Amino acid sequence: MTNQVTIKEVAARDGLQAQSVEISLDQRRELILSLVAAGVPELEIGSFVSPKAVPQMAGTDALAQTLPEAMTKYSALVPNMKGYELARREGIDQLAIVVSATEQMNQNNIRKSLEDTFSMASEIMRRAREEQVDIHAYLAVAFECPYEGRVNASVIMDQAQQLMRDAPGRLVIADTIGAANPRAVKSMMTELVAQFGVEALGCHFHDTRAMGLANVFAALDAGIRQFDSSAGGLGGCPFAPGAKGNVATEDVVMLCESAGLSTGINIEALLESVAHLTQMIGSEQGGRAHYWLTHNWQKMTA
Amino acid sequence: MTNQVTIKEVAARDGLQAQSVEISLDQRRELILSLVAAGVPELEIGSFVSPKAVPQMAGTDALAQTLPEAMTKYSALVPNMKGYELARREGIDQLAIVVSATEQMNQNNIRKSLEDTFSMASEIMRRAREEQVDIHAYLAVAFECPYEGRVNASVIMDQAQQLMRDAPGRLVIADTIGAANPRAVKSMMTELVAQFGVEALGCHFHDTRAMGLANVFAALDAGIRQFDSSAGGLGGCPFAPGAKGNVATEDVVMLCESAGLSTGINIEALLESVAHLTQMIGSEQGGRAHYWLTHNWQKMTA
Repeated sequence: MTNQVTIKEVAARDGLQAQSVEISLDQRRELILSLVAAGVPELEIGSFVSPKAVPQMAGTDALAQTLPEAMTKYSALVPNMKGYELARREGIDQLAIVVSATEQMNQNNIRKSLEDTFSMASEIMRRAREEQVDIHAYLAVAFECPYEGRVNASVIMDQAQQLMRDAPGRLVIADTIGAANPRAVKSMMTELVAQFGVEALGCHFHDTRAMGLANVFAALDAGIRQFDSSAGGLGGCPFAPGAKGNVATEDVVMLCESAGLSTGINIEALLESVAHLTQMIGSEQGGRAHYWLTHNWQKMTA
Repeated sequence: MTNQVTIKEVAARDGLQAQSVEISLDQRRELILSLVAAGVPELEIGSFVSPKAVPQMAGTDALAQTLPEAMTKYSALVPNMKGYELARREGIDQLAIVVSATEQMNQNNIRKSLEDTFSMASEIMRRAREEQVDIHAYLAVAFECPYEGRVNASVIMDQAQQLMRDAPGRLVIADTIGAANPRAVKSMMTELVAQFGVEALGCHFHDTRAMGLANVFAALDAGIRQFDSSAGGLGGCPFAPGAKGNVATEDVVMLCESAGLSTGINIEALLESVAHLTQMIGSEQGGRAHYWLTHNWQKMTA
């Protein structure tokens, strides 16, 4: 089992999209460049969705054109075939699509039935395969749905099987509302790894209940080596102090590096990105280990 | 493997002992009674140490005399045979002794050599066995020492073997400075469980680096079912905001209960203890999941 962990940085998409302050394209670009400088291997730069639905993500096409070549792989979220085409026009060749595990989440989120969402995903994955585009298929609310409650693990296993038929570059199990517990994560990821191997699997956790790192470890322990995370834990509700968003990249890097797993990310540079975010958003950002990292990490690695 | 998790609540000892505000015996008693009301199965009421060394723990003998009979098992920390005798005089029959894994930690902490500490522990354990007193032997700085750095796992295995010869009621592996990572915890506890079984093992984690819950899960996954924790995460340095102390009882209860493990602790009552602590200490107390628990737990369980 490899000791290399691949982190996909999602602050510039999943993080910013949850913010209520206005962020300019220049600011989004600056954030992305600072994260590239920290050495994140993959980075979601935005999404190609309707600017009416998600105004924070408007202009992702223009933004894409201004980004320099880098070691970082740029990624984008596309909601449908139109988004796929827009992203491809900008030359982005790692794209994320989302299907939710429950009927009600698909209906409320994108006004489509579960069945229609899965066939749309299948269509995009088949086309992507022909065009050699790397698709990450997200299975959202994989543990609990805000409308339907606890999701049965057997439902996820069946849906994973269905998605894997179209051979996405990665199937990402997403705990969209931060309701997973590490025991359920360990059990589900172990079963998925047994069926599909670790290479094509990833996890996306939210830190709503402070179990983000425990869930990351549970997945690591099951063999998973690909994780989404967000610098500063950006992504929580801006009006609720302590309501954390995505699991923080710096927390995941700290956990991995202290456990002898390598991420390739420079944590000091990453903490500068977090400081940058604090300025940009106008409120203190930072993961659960923010205090310890800002006070002790340098001493540790000195 | 049992789904029952036993929590030993240490806020009234490990937590209070780190505070700089003056706390009266009445206040300590009130805290203890509120934690008893929350249903904690075991509770460390204080320690029988010199009041010169640890003024916060002065009067534990008088305090013990005022505590009512309860379902909660009262426990105390004793530094030596004299402390053992003082605690026994108050009828406390679950006692904790501490040995540190490194020479320097023993020297700096109690001015004894490693060898002398281990023989003193052995003497107390043998006497306790004769007198049918339940002894918890703590192996402190089991992952990292503030003076000697990383502690080799093989050292801990040898020391565990040595301590187990005197058959303590529980051997508690303690990450005294909150430096453990879940991968090391999983590996060490798995090896210890294989040698000694789960019944006589426990863990004590600090949440300094926000890996407390990940470490608890790692130990749970290795089979461990006995944990120390502190209401509100009390125990951090009072002058360093965000420098968390012991892993918070409410966080551990949340993790366990959401993973289908039972603690017998009432989380609403526990959150009242935490509110009480906030008042008592004069600054906001609470674990990592404090925001979520205070805003959502009741809705969840309603």
